[in-house]
This record gives sequence, structure tokens and C-alpha cells, in this order.
Amino acid sequence: MTDKILPLLGRRSVRAYLPDAAVSEAELRALLEAAMAAPSAMARDPWRFLVLRERADLAALADLLPHGQMLRQAALGIVVCGDPAQAHRQEISYLLQDCSAAVENLLIAAHLLGLGAVWLGVHPNEDRVTGIRRQFGVPETILPVAAIAVGRPAEAPEPRTRFNPDFVHAGRW
Amino acid sequence: MTDKILPLLGRRSVRAYLPDAAVSEAELRALLEAAMAAPSAMARDPWRFLVLRERADLAALADLLPHGQMLRQAALGIVVCGDPAQAHRQEISYLLQDCSAAVENLLIAAHLLGLGAVWLGVHPNEDRVTGIRRQFGVPETILPVAAIAVGRPAEAPEPRTRFNPDFVHAGRW
Repeated sequence: MTDKILPLLGRRSVRAYLPDAAVSEAELRALLEAAMAAPSAMARDPWRFLVLRERADLAALADLLPHGQMLRQAALGIVVCGDPAQAHRQEISYLLQDCSAAVENLLIAAHLLGLGAVWLGVHPNEDRVTGIRRQFGVPETILPVAAIAVGRPAEAPEPRTRFNPDFVHAGRW
Repeated sequence: MTDKILPLLGRRSVRAYLPDAAVSEAELRALLEAAMAAPSAMARDPWRFLVLRERADLAALADLLPHGQMLRQAALGIVVCGDPAQAHRQEISYLLQDCSAAVENLLIAAHLLGLGAVWLGVHPNEDRVTGIRRQFGVPETILPVAAIAVGRPAEAPEPRTRFNPDFVHAGRW
């Protein structure tokens, strides 16, 4: 059974990338298609994507994210944002759930394409939300949720799960 | 490029299941392994899983979820919950992001296994959160986030993305 879910077990956080190795337009398009193939509450698709490819922009994003220094070597940075006005019932909870499903799809797509990627936390850190808005002209009405660094992998972590039977309750808690 | 991301484009919401078609223990285990292979903020893995297989339990969950009537025909219902005390910085935002990544992994795993599944909203609907806690003995300290119905598919929606170029901003918003 494990072989069938290998695309999921094989998606690992990849934080080291080959220098000067680009990601093609076709690959970027596939990443975004995968992200926008995620389900969203009432199919409201409140997700929005800020794509950064310039070295200076990637460095500016790294300056805002304490765990995002690998962005300086990445081919691509993608900030996944949500538009609260478009989310189901304008609920931030649904916006976060929808955007997170899109992020996870994008990370799995990167793995399927032979790329490496890592999820970098933004929301609910107010400094990061505000800093990203200011740096990249994101309107106050838009909520930056998470950032993703993408590159050609310079490391290949083994597939794994962190399955823990204590986390599973059957029938009743 | 599209062929490589087909596992993601092919994951669709499946709401009709073959009657009396069970999901094996090995399949359930693979679904949970996939869910727990998701990334989580600071690897805190705050996700918890309530697995329902009894017809009466599936009907009781359907009673609580207005869009969850397919649970009455499903082989399996899984309520994905979060433990706020275990989430990074005890932030509900991180808990929601982590649990949503686990839900999306579980849905993709169902598709890879030839099963059908659908994401049913719970949080932030207070009636659903409270009703699930009461019905299944979930402690007040645990937050039900989403439910998933799983069964052998009686429908096969086509792969697709909802890619929208207007949702993509390059370099600056």
C-alpha cells in the first residue's frame, strides 16, 4: 500500500538548492495549476499567489522570514495569500484552510516535478504579514498566509511518515 | 508537465459511493500515514484523528453536517482535529494550517488508492464543533477542524485545475 502513497511520503522539506539552476515557466505553471486544483470551502478559491524570481526580491523576502534564508539560493519564492472578502462567509478559518490545501498541493507538485520546496510560516506573525505587504505592494485587504521556496534540490531526504498510533481514536475519543 | 501532476488534478471531491463496499484496514492505515506525512509548523504535528466506521456513527456525523449526507453511504468518516496545546506557539492559525495540510494529503492518498473522498467543513462553525465534541466524547481541549467521507467511488469526475491567471502576481502585487 505504501508504494501507492509514495508521492506523499516522498514530499519532504528541501532547504538546499543547486546554485544558478532555474525553474522553467512550464514548471512554474504546473506548480500553480496544482495549487489551484486544491479544494476550497464552497469552491470560493480565495487564494492568490505572489511569484518572486528576481534575486533582490528573494533576498528581501528572506530578510522578512527568520527561517527563510534558503530563499537566497532558491530559484523561486511564492507567497500564498488569501482574499478574506472572497473566502466562504469571509471567515479567516476557511481562508487559512483553503490556502493551506493549495500550499500542500504546490509542495507535492514540486516533488512530482523533481524540484525541492519548503513551507515557510507567515500568518499569524504580524511582522511578517506587514513586512510582506509593505515590501511587495500587497494591499491591506489581502492576507499573506505562507511562503514557499522552490529550487532544484541539492539534498534528497528519504520518504517517511510521522504516523503515530496515539493520534488515532476509533469510534469514540 | 500536466501528466506529472495528474495525482493532484485527479483528486476531485467524490460524494457518491458504492453501497456496502468496505475500506480495508491496510487502506485506512495508508490514509493516516499519508495524513501524518504532511508538514507542520516546527514539526509539532498537532493533528489528531477520530475514525468512524460504524453505520450509526456515520449517521450521527451526517446529522451534524448539513453538506455531509453522503456519510450515510460512506465506508469511513474521519474527523481531523487539532490539539491547540501542541500547535506551534499554541496558535490556532498554525493548527488550522497543519490540519489542513494533513486533510489534503489524506484526500490525495484516497485518490491514489482508488478511493473517493470529500472534505466537509467543521471549524469555525460552532454548532458543528460542539456537536462533534458532544457526540463522540471529544475533549473541550481538542478542536475539530474538518471531516472527511471516504468510500469506493460510484462517480469518477475528470481531472481538472481551476487555474486562474488573475490570481497570480509577478514580482509586485
